[in-house]
Amino acid sequence: MNEATPIRRRQTVRLNEISDKRMNDQKLQGQYQPYKDAAWGFINHWYPALFSEELPEEGVEGIQICGIPIVLRRVDGKIYALKDQCVHRGVRLSAKPMCLTKKSISCWYHGFTFDLESGRLTTIIANPGDKLIGNTGITTYPVEEKGGMIFVFVREDDFPNEDVPPLASDLPVRFPDSSERFPHPLWPASPSILDEDAVALGIHRTGETNWRIACENGFDNAHILVHKDNTIVQAMNWVLPLGLLPTSDDAITLIEDENGPKGLMQWLFTDKWAPVLENEELGLKVEGVNGRFYRTSVVLPGCLMVENWPEEHVVQYEWYVPITDDLYEYWEVLVKVCRTDEERTKFKYRFDRVYVPLCLNGFNDCDLYAREAMEEFYADGTGWDDEQLVATDVSPVTWRKLASRWNRGIAKPGRGVTNATKTSSIRMRRLAEGKKPSYFVEKIED
Amino acid sequence: MNEATPIRRRQTVRLNEISDKRMNDQKLQGQYQPYKDAAWGFINHWYPALFSEELPEEGVEGIQICGIPIVLRRVDGKIYALKDQCVHRGVRLSAKPMCLTKKSISCWYHGFTFDLESGRLTTIIANPGDKLIGNTGITTYPVEEKGGMIFVFVREDDFPNEDVPPLASDLPVRFPDSSERFPHPLWPASPSILDEDAVALGIHRTGETNWRIACENGFDNAHILVHKDNTIVQAMNWVLPLGLLPTSDDAITLIEDENGPKGLMQWLFTDKWAPVLENEELGLKVEGVNGRFYRTSVVLPGCLMVENWPEEHVVQYEWYVPITDDLYEYWEVLVKVCRTDEERTKFKYRFDRVYVPLCLNGFNDCDLYAREAMEEFYADGTGWDDEQLVATDVSPVTWRKLASRWNRGIAKPGRGVTNATKTSSIRMRRLAEGKKPSYFVEKIED
Amino acid sequence: MNEATPIRRRQTVRLNEISDKRMNDQKLQGQYQPYKDAAWGFINHWYPALFSEELPEEGVEGIQICGIPIVLRRVDGKIYALKDQCVHRGVRLSAKPMCLTKKSISCWYHGFTFDLESGRLTTIIANPGDKLIGNTGITTYPVEEKGGMIFVFVREDDFPNEDVPPLASDLPVRFPDSSERFPHPLWPASPSILDEDAVALGIHRTGETNWRIACENGFDNAHILVHKDNTIVQAMNWVLPLGLLPTSDDAITLIEDENGPKGLMQWLFTDKWAPVLENEELGLKVEGVNGRFYRTSVVLPGCLMVENWPEEHVVQYEWYVPITDDLYEYWEVLVKVCRTDEERTKFKYRFDRVYVPLCLNGFNDCDLYAREAMEEFYADGTGWDDEQLVATDVSPVTWRKLASRWNRGIAKPGRGVTNATKTSSIRMRRLAEGKKPSYFVEKIED
Repeated sequence: MNEATPIRRRQTVRLNEISDKRMNDQKLQGQYQPYKDAAWGFINHWYPALFSEELPEEGVEGIQICGIPIVLRRVDGKIYALKDQCVHRGVRLSAKPMCLTKKSISCWYHGFTFDLESGRLTTIIANPGDKLIGNTGITTYPVEEKGGMIFVFVREDDFPNEDVPPLASDLPVRFPDSSERFPHPLWPASPSILDEDAVALGIHRTGETNWRIACENGFDNAHILVHKDNTIVQAMNWVLPLGLLPTSDDAITLIEDENGPKGLMQWLFTDKWAPVLENEELGLKVEGVNGRFYRTSVVLPGCLMVENWPEEHVVQYEWYVPITDDLYEYWEVLVKVCRTDEERTKFKYRFDRVYVPLCLNGFNDCDLYAREAMEEFYADGTGWDDEQLVATDVSPVTWRKLASRWNRGIAKPGRGVTNATKTSSIRMRRLAEGKKPSYFVEKIED
Repeated sequence: MNEATPIRRRQTVRLNEISDKRMNDQKLQGQYQPYKDAAWGFINHWYPALFSEELPEEGVEGIQICGIPIVLRRVDGKIYALKDQCVHRGVRLSAKPMCLTKKSISCWYHGFTFDLESGRLTTIIANPGDKLIGNTGITTYPVEEKGGMIFVFVREDDFPNEDVPPLASDLPVRFPDSSERFPHPLWPASPSILDEDAVALGIHRTGETNWRIACENGFDNAHILVHKDNTIVQAMNWVLPLGLLPTSDDAITLIEDENGPKGLMQWLFTDKWAPVLENEELGLKVEGVNGRFYRTSVVLPGCLMVENWPEEHVVQYEWYVPITDDLYEYWEVLVKVCRTDEERTKFKYRFDRVYVPLCLNGFNDCDLYAREAMEEFYADGTGWDDEQLVATDVSPVTWRKLASRWNRGIAKPGRGVTNATKTSSIRMRRLAEGKKPSYFVEKIED
Repeated sequence: MNEATPIRRRQTVRLNEISDKRMNDQKLQGQYQPYKDAAWGFINHWYPALFSEELPEEGVEGIQICGIPIVLRRVDGKIYALKDQCVHRGVRLSAKPMCLTKKSISCWYHGFTFDLESGRLTTIIANPGDKLIGNTGITTYPVEEKGGMIFVFVREDDFPNEDVPPLASDLPVRFPDSSERFPHPLWPASPSILDEDAVALGIHRTGETNWRIACENGFDNAHILVHKDNTIVQAMNWVLPLGLLPTSDDAITLIEDENGPKGLMQWLFTDKWAPVLENEELGLKVEGVNGRFYRTSVVLPGCLMVENWPEEHVVQYEWYVPITDDLYEYWEVLVKVCRTDEERTKFKYRFDRVYVPLCLNGFNDCDLYAREAMEEFYADGTGWDDEQLVATDVSPVTWRKLASRWNRGIAKPGRGVTNATKTSSIRMRRLAEGKKPSYFVEKIED
């Protein structure tokens, strides 16, 4: 018996060594370290929380963004948003809403009652003289409602009201104000959800991926491939190119004005990006390219705008709202300015009959599975170091650097909140019952 | 491009800062640190294991308490309890019971055979001469059977037989012995499971919460709110107060006699606790309060007694038996002294037709969801530091301090036992099959 | 109130102290430390990947072995195996196979295209001029196809082609070559999958246990007990002994020739192992033992051979292929030399009608549950230290030491691969959908 460890093989070059030709070398990676740290999202930003119709008068809903549980309540039309975690024993107020006055929300468990405006603890139902009353409270979140959507400014507890930026600073650039700066010859100025008479129609659903993985897929020009067999592509007789390649250094414009949104605009379907029509190695050749022209841009905290899509005068917005480090809420919203009831009805009809099945599902479902396919590689953090990016990844890399510079804060890992403890037996029980992790709080049924 | 990190906001007072007016300041928290450490329960205590009818003659069942797997077997009426983990390769004896003699249990895998009385390894079926025989064994646990319940003294491996305390030391105080010390004008002396002719009827089920969270809910006087819409309350036309407030320093009496149970007694429905009938801030006023009078007490290792509930001459016991750090077995037991078969039959009928649907389920189901609602906040340990307690939390705080002083040991986190490794693929497979984590061992079907 | 911690009990001898009479004392354990470290398997070995019929011409399948995702493709009959993780963003190529030429596989997401032979990145569909092309690639794995099975040499990235050993070095010893060395009087020389005209019929399935736990069960002579009630045993009127005991120091022969397989051979049903027919302590006595004679051996990386089982001229092979640290692929394969179509047809018929239901399921299902029953004890690593082995465990102990000496490398824990992050929300969602962790990649449905 040989007790010595035998020499079994020679050393050799690693077959899959990470190439020093990759775009994202260590120096470049250093420029977006804050982004790599933002697994739980960027905080102190405006995020979509609900569609207006999801929160009727007197309604209460609980959600979670960037690891922060948030309860929304609508009273006399006005919407309030507060931290959805009682200061007493930490239960979610929204799990069993108890609102005894128009200006308060009470905890269903021990009756701790909070002022909707200030978040202050104003009384305890069965303990009205306690010295804690008036001396604590829960964080409140500024709310804006525009075009059928409710936005919440998700902030750290010590972020002061007077520094809350306007909603517009976390939404895509607007037209016609930006038409001179971002002209495009092929379509009229894009609408905005902030426009008068804007109508936003859309869907949102929970994806089991980190929000950054999802976001980068949104404006990635190099994955046209996954869409080539989509029903809408075939129905419209579109012929897609193999891909799009940047042809000049200014193929992407940074958006970083002091008081506006921070993001990037990609000059797609201009001479700054060329369609790839042939791959000789593989014997591929595309002829007679035709399809929809569009332009994508993305701004912090992760809002995509696809102009001229899926039809003229319509814009598609997307958000990838962090719930935890591996759950995000995927928002797909079409915006159009409708000045009459007839226009609104017609837009809604086309949304329901064409765009939901063929675009928001159909087409974008491919993006969902592509994001999921990346999750395992990035889940333990190694993907961010090991990925080998190429020239066409200029878009995500530009975004990562920009987001690292301009975000208003990196969200801390969730503490004591839903899905933060991934192995809890309650979570397991819900899985056994067929209930997957969710953006919404599970309401208690008495 | 601005390379410097911009100053984006001022510092301000935290909106939800933990108030220094909270009852549980750091000094107070220090007085119950052992309790905070007892995620896996207190060991060297008596716990209910099974109802007598769950273990018929020759029956074998496997359960888990405080992270310790335990197998019970009944032979000629006598019950034995042993560590349910073979010394050889660690499988659970109870998974596929193999009992070849009246005084032994054998492992179904390799035939390791243990003496029921001593736990010693007495033979190995296919290896009867091995030198390990007689030189190792598994821990045994003292057993008591009373009134239809089987209790096990769950101990550390080195806890000597001669120091095992009587069962009564881990059960609520008894009457009429304690009538002078704990008189109550509104009802006759409460029965005890230790009384002659006591009958215990109840249910038990697994909850996905830490046992302490569950236990504190049991004797919490400040959560009357969650019960106000219960069917039994409405059916009985009870009118509940908003809450109960302690009105004197001796609203709670400590029970810490040298040789008896250690716990606390709450003088509910005496002049030491006042009903809260009004909350001006919220415009709430309760009139014509009426309902059942009751008194709650709790003793180590977590046994609640509700006297005069749900009817006169009946007492409700509850246990919150730790299985792991986030699973507990919830026991709800009604005890009555029944001196004749007729009384027993009548009690059983009323139990089945009224108390199971309206109280043990109905009413107490609200407690189950309230406990679950707290779990996320406490699951990662931060809840114990961040909770902001108030005057009415005198009950849990008194309990925590008392339990810290008088427990007989803090259970170590489970090693190599069911649900200790929460992410094991076997656990995952069971979830995919719709089986949630359980108190009972899953029996092998050949 | 007593502020001092009371002295509550004496110290005593632990009832279940680990005995110093156990076979695996600390010194012995030190001799198989590498084995204890090999939770993710041994790397740089040949493993079965698929049955030939699972990979038809042009077929693509994704699997995982030793934490390494592997994609297999068959072109013009030849099989290629590559690392199933795109160098770009880490998605699995096999999730949505895209093969545009006979010598390449392309990533369905961004078109990264790899040479099947070398693994080199040869082009990017939409970015054919990128500088990364030709400068990176994915590891390739040598493949052998024998008798209806596809074997892959699962290696570290830097393991050179010229050092890849022949498949035979990771398969059981062959006959008649070894007949002189390993004679057995009771049956003819066993067939081998490497024999001309060998036919391998079998099944494989995923078990939720560590591969070592599974493997040790395969050649464990001390667990005859679990099989005593099996249908095949009863149908054949076999009378099994209580167990088998080694009677001489050479009851097990080591196989460690320099250029051949490394393993051990157990001289079962010779005078080196005696059947145990009686256990006086338990009053057990077996008379008229009769049954099949067989002999087991095991070689690295974990391949069992059961000669003369389940019938003459047939051999049963088993593999316990590591997927992760708690998932393995269980292979059960019967091999027979069939020289004519008639023989093949007859063997297949008997396989389908008798051996699948009665042996590969039936009989071996008991081994599956036995392995699972051990998993909890070993899952957190404590089982390897706490187990108390006995004389009959000479088989696993010999195997552990041998595997520690002769393995070609210890697999590193999986990074960025399926089931490596056990708590990912995608995994949870799949569980909620009833899908358990698997050996195969989940294919994307467009």
